[in-house]
Amino acid sequence: MTASASHSPAADTLSYEQAGVNYDLIDPLKVAAQRAAAATAGHLAGHGFSEVPASRGESAYVVDVGPFYLASIVECLGSKALVADEMKALTGKSYYAGIAQDTIAMAVNDLITVGATPLVVQAYWAAGGSDWFADAQRAQALVEGWKKACDVCGVAWGGGETPALAGIVESGRIDLAASCTGIINPKTRLSVGDALGAGDAIVLLSSSGIHANGLSLARKLVERLPQGYLTEIEPGLTYGEALLAPTTLYSPVTEALAKAGVTMHYCANITGHGWRKLLRHPSSLSYRIHSVPAVPPVLKFIQQHAKQDDREAYSTLNMGAGFALFVKAGDAERTVEIAKAQGVDAIVAGVVEASASKQVLIEPINVRFGDDDLQLR
Amino acid sequence: MTASASHSPAADTLSYEQAGVNYDLIDPLKVAAQRAAAATAGHLAGHGFSEVPASRGESAYVVDVGPFYLASIVECLGSKALVADEMKALTGKSYYAGIAQDTIAMAVNDLITVGATPLVVQAYWAAGGSDWFADAQRAQALVEGWKKACDVCGVAWGGGETPALAGIVESGRIDLAASCTGIINPKTRLSVGDALGAGDAIVLLSSSGIHANGLSLARKLVERLPQGYLTEIEPGLTYGEALLAPTTLYSPVTEALAKAGVTMHYCANITGHGWRKLLRHPSSLSYRIHSVPAVPPVLKFIQQHAKQDDREAYSTLNMGAGFALFVKAGDAERTVEIAKAQGVDAIVAGVVEASASKQVLIEPINVRFGDDDLQLR
Repeated sequence: MTASASHSPAADTLSYEQAGVNYDLIDPLKVAAQRAAAATAGHLAGHGFSEVPASRGESAYVVDVGPFYLASIVECLGSKALVADEMKALTGKSYYAGIAQDTIAMAVNDLITVGATPLVVQAYWAAGGSDWFADAQRAQALVEGWKKACDVCGVAWGGGETPALAGIVESGRIDLAASCTGIINPKTRLSVGDALGAGDAIVLLSSSGIHANGLSLARKLVERLPQGYLTEIEPGLTYGEALLAPTTLYSPVTEALAKAGVTMHYCANITGHGWRKLLRHPSSLSYRIHSVPAVPPVLKFIQQHAKQDDREAYSTLNMGAGFALFVKAGDAERTVEIAKAQGVDAIVAGVVEASASKQVLIEPINVRFGDDDLQLR
Repeated sequence: MTASASHSPAADTLSYEQAGVNYDLIDPLKVAAQRAAAATAGHLAGHGFSEVPASRGESAYVVDVGPFYLASIVECLGSKALVADEMKALTGKSYYAGIAQDTIAMAVNDLITVGATPLVVQAYWAAGGSDWFADAQRAQALVEGWKKACDVCGVAWGGGETPALAGIVESGRIDLAASCTGIINPKTRLSVGDALGAGDAIVLLSSSGIHANGLSLARKLVERLPQGYLTEIEPGLTYGEALLAPTTLYSPVTEALAKAGVTMHYCANITGHGWRKLLRHPSSLSYRIHSVPAVPPVLKFIQQHAKQDDREAYSTLNMGAGFALFVKAGDAERTVEIAKAQGVDAIVAGVVEASASKQVLIEPINVRFGDDDLQLR
């Protein structure tokens, strides 16, 4: 449960807030829920266990169950399925195999940030009525894509729920989410930031596109495009197709790193707050970025047409970096090689430095985010 | 992911199928998903683990992680929140504390069927827009009810998701679900039916009312009631209030049984298929019921106004029995006492017998369900 700081965008800039999500209304609930949730941790003692307090506020919740740690999470796809529905109407193609991968990625990519090996995924597919399932091609694509993503991540698909929720979910739509359970084993793999410090290297893993964050903005932008989703962002590639590139699954990289003996000092899944997520760790550290990855064409296109400056774009979208790994400097190059061996491009992007105040400095584009730009806890 | 057999109700009977859920459309997807899910089990071997195959088709998925078993689940509330919304409009009261308990009960009461101790619950609260959270009284009730249910079950509330899903979830509505992770420890607590056999006693734990299953039917029925949800089912108790009685949480009972050394040979959470859930175990056994629990007034009322005969009512609603425990005959009375000590009424209701064909015989009402009446796998 995360809260977002607000921006002051220029007059014709299309910001995330303008795209329809009002965090001012959600945040009080989140704060109340976080407090109530924290007050339940003591129940674990009744079973002989305890929480890892540092995991509160991290992307997954961690419990010490003795021989190893247990990590769990539930994550929502968000509104990306609406793009798939629009594109189906325009092209006749089903994009739900990719949507399935996106949904699993939302859960798995968060779970691995704490050092967990994902073991079991559960499917939550809540349709707006039984009719949703009558499109056999779409339903089959969802099943096949879900299985394929499980195969890539080496997780067992345990089961799930496929309710028909007429009156709650809109007719013709589906609310997709995934829960994921994993273990941190050996316990030294726990990654909640204790090891992060000055001198560490920042390795950025490439994204495949917009992933599943920023879609409200991307959908809003369609109104400004004369050909809508069928607008070509480069020859032969429509805006809609490009948006629907499935989210990269990063667990093969984190598992390969563990096997190779590379310790993650910390990591951050770069999602709804763009590069502000690099400020996730509570310590007062400076993150100096000397190299930025190539920006996927669809994100360049969004930035241009939403008339966002670099500061706005990097604070909202992943801009080519889907996942950040913080490792000791001597492990940086090896981390890049291991990621590439798993088919995920990566660069050594920067360095962690001691600092009087928390900040990320993206030198190639001359952008700085300070502590005020991200309140996640 | 369960599938339902269909009925042939009388002409003016209001059946579950008439209430809007068409399983014929959902079942092919469920079968495809079950097959694809089963094919992912081998991935666990890559981590040195294995699934408990008998848990496929059970209410929770179980993995052998060495020192104990890991159980996980995601469950949806269903449409009960729509009743809370209607009643709020009619009475001005917020019923979301109870709705929170219902949601957790859906997950916890399923997880415990495999013998698991629930450890962590994650909240999935997907609203139809940020505006949902602007009703501070309702949001606060949801948080407080969620925490209280966690307190009752002795689980830690790990965190969760509170997305605003305009365009997917209907405006003013919320899609509520819970994921739950637990462990089975010691491993002898695993309950997937191996121990069930002739001579075992059937203990039924009382329900608090309709729980969170059969609500589509209950909501449909309102159209037949002149005063709708405000119709009194007994002096001072409206239909709407009675429907909103929160679902009983059964994990305190199963935990107390384990502490007392009572082994569950099997159990079944009595949900969407009413007493047909007693046929859940795959073996060819006969379940002879000699005593039925008192039927909660709201369920009697539904049966009467939906013009259901006993067969239809017991095949759809819990009719006073929220959870079935199968224990060795010598443990039956003690099981009842332990349940009562946890504040949950219980009766020794019947006995398991060898049989050429699978059936449940509810002698006091002269109803028999056979193998054809429930296809869950």
